[in-house]
Amino acid sequence: MKRRLLLVSNSTLHGSGYLEHCQQHISSFFGKDVKRVLFVPYALHDRDAYTKLARDKFKTLGGGNTFRLLKSLYDNKVVMEIRKRVMEDGVPYMGSSAGTNVATISISTTNDMPIVFPPSFSAIGLVPFNINPHYLDADRTSRHMGETREQRIIQYHEEPDTPCVLGLREGSLLLVEGNKATLLGTTKARLFTRKKPTVEYEPGSDLSFLLTDAQ
Amino acid sequence: MKRRLLLVSNSTLHGSGYLEHCQQHISSFFGKDVKRVLFVPYALHDRDAYTKLARDKFKTLGGGNTFRLLKSLYDNKVVMEIRKRVMEDGVPYMGSSAGTNVATISISTTNDMPIVFPPSFSAIGLVPFNINPHYLDADRTSRHMGETREQRIIQYHEEPDTPCVLGLREGSLLLVEGNKATLLGTTKARLFTRKKPTVEYEPGSDLSFLLTDAQ
Repeated sequence: MKRRLLLVSNSTLHGSGYLEHCQQHISSFFGKDVKRVLFVPYALHDRDAYTKLARDKFKTLGGGNTFRLLKSLYDNKVVMEIRKRVMEDGVPYMGSSAGTNVATISISTTNDMPIVFPPSFSAIGLVPFNINPHYLDADRTSRHMGETREQRIIQYHEEPDTPCVLGLREGSLLLVEGNKATLLGTTKARLFTRKKPTVEYEPGSDLSFLLTDAQ
Repeated sequence: MKRRLLLVSNSTLHGSGYLEHCQQHISSFFGKDVKRVLFVPYALHDRDAYTKLARDKFKTLGGGNTFRLLKSLYDNKVVMEIRKRVMEDGVPYMGSSAGTNVATISISTTNDMPIVFPPSFSAIGLVPFNINPHYLDADRTSRHMGETREQRIIQYHEEPDTPCVLGLREGSLLLVEGNKATLLGTTKARLFTRKKPTVEYEPGSDLSFLLTDAQ
């Protein structure tokens, strides 16, 4: 298993610049030998502008709308190709927000609006669980009556055979190297497992157990 | 055109009981002659409990997860049947939150997580536009970096041929009688039209122009 993944909750953290909160992790993840990065701009509407932004300043890699990103990956027939290159050839994969969602089993725990209809919610499947990026704790003082993020994930787990969901708060990221997974960043992550209590994990935690299919 | 619709943003408003904020509108909408209500419990997992709740206390009509509701409507082959009964036979339709989303052209402007995969995002189509229930203004003091509701709707309108989106804030509802639409409730609504400026409407506004197909 050659996979190397860096899955970031969010590209911008309040009070710092684009990808600033994880730039050291990005540098060490890609290392000095990587000369070229394939940037997938499908998640935003203006792909040329988005690519220019990324090229110029290494900004917002993989953010945008998850449905638009996944649909374009299918339309361009690259879902299986990316999976093969990452899982078998060891090409490093980095995603942030939407780019993190599409790296997992499915996009069923995205926060985005379903603005386009992809042929499936199944995603690239680089890890055997789901992630909720930008995970948000309930605001007890809010008067808004929409479901909390936790309630939405619990609804997902009412469906049969649904996998674990790792809630990555803003500022946290997951590093996967082969069969080892480590939580990095500055904030805790919250793990939801179907019919089990939720668990909080501190930065630095070893989450390799999530990579075995039978959790 | 016989349609009569009552499309509610949310079933519970902060500080009041279930459907309390719109109970007078519900009473006058159904009137004294309606003896039976068909309640569609598909949007929540435990349908028996949900139906009992609705029967006992007339609670949370049509709330829950929009994807689950629409998928079950398709699975049970009732999308076209409901459309026919409402549009041609004049059976009154009332929905709240998820029940409001599925009454429109598509569920592409729901806030819910895509926990199940419906065969289409096209919905019952009782009105020729979309609604965003629980519409939420941006919180300028928030440190959370996820997209605002407005940004998400703007992303939707980057796609070609997308219809108007009526942002129904909590506490507002739309009454449709034939070709007349009126904004009711206690809060303003925000209308998003592709490539045009957004407009705010006060409760009581006549929104009949939204019912013509060519907006």
